[in-house]
Amino acid sequence: MSNTIKKVAVFTSGGDSPGMNAAIRSVVRTCAFYKIECVGIYRGYEGMIEGDFKPLTARSVKDIINKGGTFLKSARSDEFRTKEGRKKAYDALVAENVDALVVIGGDGSFTGALIFNEEFGFPVMGIPGTIDNDIYGTSHTLGYDTALNTVVDCVDKIRDTASSHNRLFFVEVMGRDAGHIALNVGVGAGAEEILIPEEDLGLDRLLESLRRSKQSGKSSSIVIVAEGDKTGKNVFELKDYVEENMEEYEVRVSVLGHMQRGGSPSCFDRVLASRMGVKAVESLLEGKSNYMVGLLKDEIVLTPLEQAVKGKSEIDHELIRVSDIMTT
Amino acid sequence: MSNTIKKVAVFTSGGDSPGMNAAIRSVVRTCAFYKIECVGIYRGYEGMIEGDFKPLTARSVKDIINKGGTFLKSARSDEFRTKEGRKKAYDALVAENVDALVVIGGDGSFTGALIFNEEFGFPVMGIPGTIDNDIYGTSHTLGYDTALNTVVDCVDKIRDTASSHNRLFFVEVMGRDAGHIALNVGVGAGAEEILIPEEDLGLDRLLESLRRSKQSGKSSSIVIVAEGDKTGKNVFELKDYVEENMEEYEVRVSVLGHMQRGGSPSCFDRVLASRMGVKAVESLLEGKSNYMVGLLKDEIVLTPLEQAVKGKSEIDHELIRVSDIMTT
Amino acid sequence: MSNTIKKVAVFTSGGDSPGMNAAIRSVVRTCAFYKIECVGIYRGYEGMIEGDFKPLTARSVKDIINKGGTFLKSARSDEFRTKEGRKKAYDALVAENVDALVVIGGDGSFTGALIFNEEFGFPVMGIPGTIDNDIYGTSHTLGYDTALNTVVDCVDKIRDTASSHNRLFFVEVMGRDAGHIALNVGVGAGAEEILIPEEDLGLDRLLESLRRSKQSGKSSSIVIVAEGDKTGKNVFELKDYVEENMEEYEVRVSVLGHMQRGGSPSCFDRVLASRMGVKAVESLLEGKSNYMVGLLKDEIVLTPLEQAVKGKSEIDHELIRVSDIMTT
Amino acid sequence: MSNTIKKVAVFTSGGDSPGMNAAIRSVVRTCAFYKIECVGIYRGYEGMIEGDFKPLTARSVKDIINKGGTFLKSARSDEFRTKEGRKKAYDALVAENVDALVVIGGDGSFTGALIFNEEFGFPVMGIPGTIDNDIYGTSHTLGYDTALNTVVDCVDKIRDTASSHNRLFFVEVMGRDAGHIALNVGVGAGAEEILIPEEDLGLDRLLESLRRSKQSGKSSSIVIVAEGDKTGKNVFELKDYVEENMEEYEVRVSVLGHMQRGGSPSCFDRVLASRMGVKAVESLLEGKSNYMVGLLKDEIVLTPLEQAVKGKSEIDHELIRVSDIMTT
Repeated sequence: MSNTIKKVAVFTSGGDSPGMNAAIRSVVRTCAFYKIECVGIYRGYEGMIEGDFKPLTARSVKDIINKGGTFLKSARSDEFRTKEGRKKAYDALVAENVDALVVIGGDGSFTGALIFNEEFGFPVMGIPGTIDNDIYGTSHTLGYDTALNTVVDCVDKIRDTASSHNRLFFVEVMGRDAGHIALNVGVGAGAEEILIPEEDLGLDRLLESLRRSKQSGKSSSIVIVAEGDKTGKNVFELKDYVEENMEEYEVRVSVLGHMQRGGSPSCFDRVLASRMGVKAVESLLEGKSNYMVGLLKDEIVLTPLEQAVKGKSEIDHELIRVSDIMTT
Repeated sequence: MSNTIKKVAVFTSGGDSPGMNAAIRSVVRTCAFYKIECVGIYRGYEGMIEGDFKPLTARSVKDIINKGGTFLKSARSDEFRTKEGRKKAYDALVAENVDALVVIGGDGSFTGALIFNEEFGFPVMGIPGTIDNDIYGTSHTLGYDTALNTVVDCVDKIRDTASSHNRLFFVEVMGRDAGHIALNVGVGAGAEEILIPEEDLGLDRLLESLRRSKQSGKSSSIVIVAEGDKTGKNVFELKDYVEENMEEYEVRVSVLGHMQRGGSPSCFDRVLASRMGVKAVESLLEGKSNYMVGLLKDEIVLTPLEQAVKGKSEIDHELIRVSDIMTT
Repeated sequence: MSNTIKKVAVFTSGGDSPGMNAAIRSVVRTCAFYKIECVGIYRGYEGMIEGDFKPLTARSVKDIINKGGTFLKSARSDEFRTKEGRKKAYDALVAENVDALVVIGGDGSFTGALIFNEEFGFPVMGIPGTIDNDIYGTSHTLGYDTALNTVVDCVDKIRDTASSHNRLFFVEVMGRDAGHIALNVGVGAGAEEILIPEEDLGLDRLLESLRRSKQSGKSSSIVIVAEGDKTGKNVFELKDYVEENMEEYEVRVSVLGHMQRGGSPSCFDRVLASRMGVKAVESLLEGKSNYMVGLLKDEIVLTPLEQAVKGKSEIDHELIRVSDIMTT
Repeated sequence: MSNTIKKVAVFTSGGDSPGMNAAIRSVVRTCAFYKIECVGIYRGYEGMIEGDFKPLTARSVKDIINKGGTFLKSARSDEFRTKEGRKKAYDALVAENVDALVVIGGDGSFTGALIFNEEFGFPVMGIPGTIDNDIYGTSHTLGYDTALNTVVDCVDKIRDTASSHNRLFFVEVMGRDAGHIALNVGVGAGAEEILIPEEDLGLDRLLESLRRSKQSGKSSSIVIVAEGDKTGKNVFELKDYVEENMEEYEVRVSVLGHMQRGGSPSCFDRVLASRMGVKAVESLLEGKSNYMVGLLKDEIVLTPLEQAVKGKSEIDHELIRVSDIMTT
């Protein structure tokens, strides 16, 4: 492997997600395995600019594989959006003798890395970490599987109370641009209807579906609504609309919120993080740069960062069909 | 034991809570043990009026001790608030040969039972089921312990993301009239501040406390807010107020909502439900009426229903003091 | 679609696994969607012989998607291994007007279905349900993902006590013929060593690895052992062997046992079950028979049952490599 | 308050239990609140002898309230059983200017503290930490409530597979000298029979009970067995005995093992730990010594350590009666 890279820096950026700690651990241990140095950068690009670095050894990352969040913390950085900010960051990295970067985050974080690479020729590798699963080039982002379990567990709990009271619940889940969580949780929790950004179900069809559900003898119903659903109404407006148009139902709203991002990662996310960290470091050592590590058809593969940023993760249309059959 | 009671009816009323199914099971099995009949009434007082009864045997209630919600369902009944409604309910019970009632619910449900007993002399026993723990005459209502664990688990998850981003979170938990959940979860989750209906912390002291917390080096903070807190502001107004007055913090709000009511009951709630159901049926068989079964100082005791309805469950002031020490 | 199939029977066979109920539900609802009848067979082949059938409608399977186990129950059947037994089963199916079978289970269950098809030309479709993930033709069997999370959660708990006491734990997990659970949980829980049936690590290398781990400053260690590991020793003999050869360690053993099979299915398993059930029924309606529905490279595909039975699911050798790097 | 105590040392000893970290945190923060110093002693009496101390501030204990195990670790110490060992420990404490000790542990740990106090007049306070709940002077030891939830959750999972296969399971739970876990989990998980050290059910009555259970139509059964049950047989011998005498049942055994000690503490245990830590430090500051902090009838109280060590925690006979009614 290449011996031009002697020190790798790893950081997390953007919204946190379960599995980020496991990915940091993997990057650190892979560096240790190949006997190269590793530093952690605190608070993402902000900390990079400020030189907030800390050497990490195999021992530094023990007992974190099962922890939610990111111990390196994350932050937005307005300064990194300026050329001056990025220059400062570059100088800090050079001063620390860092040769390459592994960034764990989402679209915005990757865009920053791309520009940084373009300006300073700094080798960068991306690992997709976000619960929304809205990144092109990977079937699963880190934290997505965990979030599915967290959300399905919440909806199961809401089902308890919905069933006890014959109520209709609108449950808003994360996903501003992508309905992956809503669709999978909707199927997994047996929701009666699912509203996602990718599909315009239309308010009329929603009412019709709820009426049919009521007539078929269902006494309670759960509708999963992605934050960015296409009806153009937010979840509280939806409630009002349905209550105005269907007196049969007493409607309740639940916005699950930030707890969806937290929690101990699932086994899948821990294993995925471990695999991605190895690939990221080994790819850098092979002289590669500007790629995102992803999982496609069960294999760990590289996608050019530029494609990852520009491409769009597609909703699973076959699963929409399955969902329709399940709610017959 | 008395042989005037040959058939007991059990029902759930008001908001559901984890442990209600376990309490129904206990009532049913205790009836079976004493070789008397038991019927379940569906949908509370509404079902009582409609005669929506179902005979329950020891077998009918297998595999429900660990289920959230109530399989007998619950409902509000406007009709039961009228004398005519209650007469219908009485006639339905007489037609079914029911001799006594066990009502599992909260204040409102007990008030209904009291009036019913006054008018028709029907023996009634209450079992306190609500997550809010706001009932006089018992240290623990059914579902309260489970809700504490559910909520503390959510706040742990929010802590993951709060810590990763150095943010301030306001987390609203259930408790319109009582701060038990907020106070205990606040201590259990290590919250920096706790706002409850029983105490007027005052907005100034909140700001001061948050500033002190920031200065002491804490980079993230969690404030637990009971629904009915004394500041007179709801949780979103609180957010605005703090953001206007403290620019150091990026504030996020999370309203946990109805999921707090659901989920498989904790071992404590299952055992408590089992003990309460036995006591309710045995007390009826001893000829007692108009009592609520409660847990006081670890013992199962009876409190007159009238006191249970009129009395007020007190917040644990010693625990407020502990909370203050913990957030030093 | 074919209109020769008017009634489908579904049953579970062999060891139960989380997701079986979700798969039954999906088969039932897909039948409802295509307006064909569906019956459930209780207790697998045993119930088939006895004609223990029950008509299932979309309503019959509500509220089971999140339940572990199988409400249709499972059983071994010695009688079905005889030609007479299978004839009885055939007669019972014909008497019930069943046109096709969906069997949810593992290798043994599929073998039974194959023989039955051969003898009576009865259309059969298989859905792989077992936590062991040891079936050819699918990357994931139903229940495997759930089991990974259950087991990783147990190992996290054992880690708490191992770390507190500087102890070495051998944790035996399920997997008599396949090390999938052991390998993934080993990586996911950060185990120091993993012993699986597919690889002969050798006792010497185990001791060496534990010594190295001790020397590198680790004060506690966890070794994951698959039931069928290659050392030829069971987990208690392993403990004795290590204690005899390494006095540095106080060794403890934990055999996780049957709880690994239970619990509410993960979101992944619920979605997978829903997808598989749709495919199974639609394939029968298309006139196909003798296939197993599987997931390969994220797509739902068919594999001839015969191949599924004869083929061998391969361990992920790349993940073994990742594991070695992680335990550097 | 007394100003003779300027520095408190806290340590954990014996088996770890969930809530120990929360108790350490509480001791540390209470010291901070009263502006006295606090040091942590690593590895119990062993570390005390070796002077393995670390100053702890309010910041040192952040983010540990929800962690299982004990970050101060625990260990057995043969040397502390000798007078020389205890003299070394005393010298180390004096060298560190420690004025008083808070020991978190069980009977054995308290006995050590008593002897130490007798020999050197060193002020000591005990906090009961063990999942077994076998300590006199407190209705709840730290970790007991958490363990109940962990174990009931395991038994729920085993129930899934037991029900699916019509099997009889013997589940061994912790409790060598006390059946608290077995009794409460038995009631909470709806076990058909419970075998505890405090009661000699007798093998004949067990068989009779299982036969009655079978005849009443139960197809699966779960028997909870405390480690130290009175039958004189271990759980595997029990299995053999039952299989020899009842061919109706296929018996399986599950020994839950060390995972029962781990996991994130329940809200109850976190709050209890917080309350106990405050009381322990405040009592020392009031000049008290040789007490154990306990919870009795919902109040935090002191019991002389000597009584705590000599007394016996009683099984709840009323709950045994409830259990008998539930399994009618």
